[in-house]
Amino acid sequence: MEMFEMMGRYEHEQLVFWSEPTLGYRGIIAIHDTTLGPALGGTRFWRYDSDRDAIIDALRLSRGMTYKAAVSGLNLGGGKSVILGDNRVADREMIFRAHGRAVESLGGRYITAEDVGTSPADMDYVLAETDHVVGIYGRSGDPSPVTAYGVFVGIRAAVAHRTGSDDLDGKHVAVQGLGHVGYWLCKYLADEGARLTVTDIDAGRVQRVVDEFGATAVDPDAIYAVDADVFAPCALGAVVNDDTLPVLKFGIIAGAANNQLALSHHGDALHEAGILYAPDYVINAGGLINVYGELHEWSAERSKLKAGEIYSSLRKIFQTADDESLPPAEAADRVAEDRVARARHLQRSFV
Amino acid sequence: MEMFEMMGRYEHEQLVFWSEPTLGYRGIIAIHDTTLGPALGGTRFWRYDSDRDAIIDALRLSRGMTYKAAVSGLNLGGGKSVILGDNRVADREMIFRAHGRAVESLGGRYITAEDVGTSPADMDYVLAETDHVVGIYGRSGDPSPVTAYGVFVGIRAAVAHRTGSDDLDGKHVAVQGLGHVGYWLCKYLADEGARLTVTDIDAGRVQRVVDEFGATAVDPDAIYAVDADVFAPCALGAVVNDDTLPVLKFGIIAGAANNQLALSHHGDALHEAGILYAPDYVINAGGLINVYGELHEWSAERSKLKAGEIYSSLRKIFQTADDESLPPAEAADRVAEDRVARARHLQRSFV
Repeated sequence: MEMFEMMGRYEHEQLVFWSEPTLGYRGIIAIHDTTLGPALGGTRFWRYDSDRDAIIDALRLSRGMTYKAAVSGLNLGGGKSVILGDNRVADREMIFRAHGRAVESLGGRYITAEDVGTSPADMDYVLAETDHVVGIYGRSGDPSPVTAYGVFVGIRAAVAHRTGSDDLDGKHVAVQGLGHVGYWLCKYLADEGARLTVTDIDAGRVQRVVDEFGATAVDPDAIYAVDADVFAPCALGAVVNDDTLPVLKFGIIAGAANNQLALSHHGDALHEAGILYAPDYVINAGGLINVYGELHEWSAERSKLKAGEIYSSLRKIFQTADDESLPPAEAADRVAEDRVARARHLQRSFV
Repeated sequence: MEMFEMMGRYEHEQLVFWSEPTLGYRGIIAIHDTTLGPALGGTRFWRYDSDRDAIIDALRLSRGMTYKAAVSGLNLGGGKSVILGDNRVADREMIFRAHGRAVESLGGRYITAEDVGTSPADMDYVLAETDHVVGIYGRSGDPSPVTAYGVFVGIRAAVAHRTGSDDLDGKHVAVQGLGHVGYWLCKYLADEGARLTVTDIDAGRVQRVVDEFGATAVDPDAIYAVDADVFAPCALGAVVNDDTLPVLKFGIIAGAANNQLALSHHGDALHEAGILYAPDYVINAGGLINVYGELHEWSAERSKLKAGEIYSSLRKIFQTADDESLPPAEAADRVAEDRVARARHLQRSFV
């Protein structure tokens, strides 16, 4: 139960436990760092094996949000919340209103959104109790085009770093996953003359992309061995693992999926294999940028413009990686930490 | 680490961990129940053996505050905070400003004050970061006269319950501890014609009460065996214990000290011995009433008037104890729980 040791390891600011026993609600809000702004991060609803597992998950995920916001140039800190229990629960209103009260109790230091096990409909219940929630139906709308646009400019940044030109005409991109984000990514890429090889477990999605953008379809298992310039994983996590590494022939991996590296040492392996990896939390920040826009009532156009900055963020990260002989994932962490440290230093100078 | 099990046992709403590693600040805020109003309770600064001990202390003390506020008719919930560390720390400003930020993070759901290991001067640092703090120099002022007045009317209530009249003329009261509260209590009692036997480890304090109010002084160890109508412990805790119980000849125990019963079963022992015990957290609520007055900018006169209601609170508790054959300490808990339950039921009816 050495709570402060767990918090101290990565300098978490705050950890909140909220309980409404009569409703069966048990929630944890972790706030990692608010140097850059209020802590934003989604609500995960999950049946954890123990309170300890839930605490560790909340601490880990909230820290990730600090890095993501920092590297994306957003004025946001990092936070995350988890609700403990079976996310197939019938009475979602009672649970998510209780969660809304927990979020409201922090008076805006933490802003929530949907995440694994929760939906925009759940966030409507949260909204009944607090204004500190984003990703609401009818506000910023579907984030997928913005996320896809961020991935698209991220691919350009990687190609530019590799070849000296960000022209995608004739470049070959293998896209894994053709959901909302994957579809929009294919559209942006096709518009620039890129050649597409695609896969998805849903045949209808594949057919649409083949028809609209002249893409070539392959079986899901075959995507890893495609001889393309760029691999854009936009579905599963852990696609870079001990099994896939030996067959990857891509020069660049740059896609929207979360947690693309099965383990952090797989980032080193890509680096050694000469494969340029665009750190997932940097290139897929369009979703976060979209809800940030919702928070500030930006137009869709302005959010897309901001997602376009992922291009320069990645260029800077790749340059730092080269200069310091680091894998890009580590360079990204360095850039994020630098920004937080500079802001913290500034704040202290004014106390 | 089964945090929610610990919280669920007494239905705590919220438990907050706040850490500022660079300052060495580690604080916990426990909010037990806010049905009746914002959670108010002091800040304890203590070197705990473990985080677990600190958590248990915060949970236990915050629950006590719910009962105290409820039974006193205040519109306050129960909360408490603890700062972990050596309370002789030199740089109090950094620690208490960090604590102020922790309190501020809850946006008014929790209001703090001084407690064991902290002082009004420390609260001035808290005030630099949050308005949610009471017991500030120059606001409500010294709470001792109000606390003493509450104990005074509490003694009248006990005498009235025992004898049918609350006239204190000629009644014999043994007062243990002649600090600010004990001194003021002696003054109120003497004004009503009570006879006083007093003790304190400070000879100067004893002399003053002997001179001003004609009290009889005894040695500290001798106070327990005085043959008086009322014993008013106003200094140490745990004065009712296995050693003192056999020598107590008082009909009534009613004083300002915290935690007068060494263990809860000593309340049963008093009950069986026919000694009427005014539950400490009820009769000494004047201090809480005084800071509640500060919160609402009451005049000193109004706070004293409110402390006068301790008379009727205790009458009701003694009556409940008789009706249900309970020790008064248990009757007080019952009265507090009833009030919270009724308020909670009302709130739910309006959702």
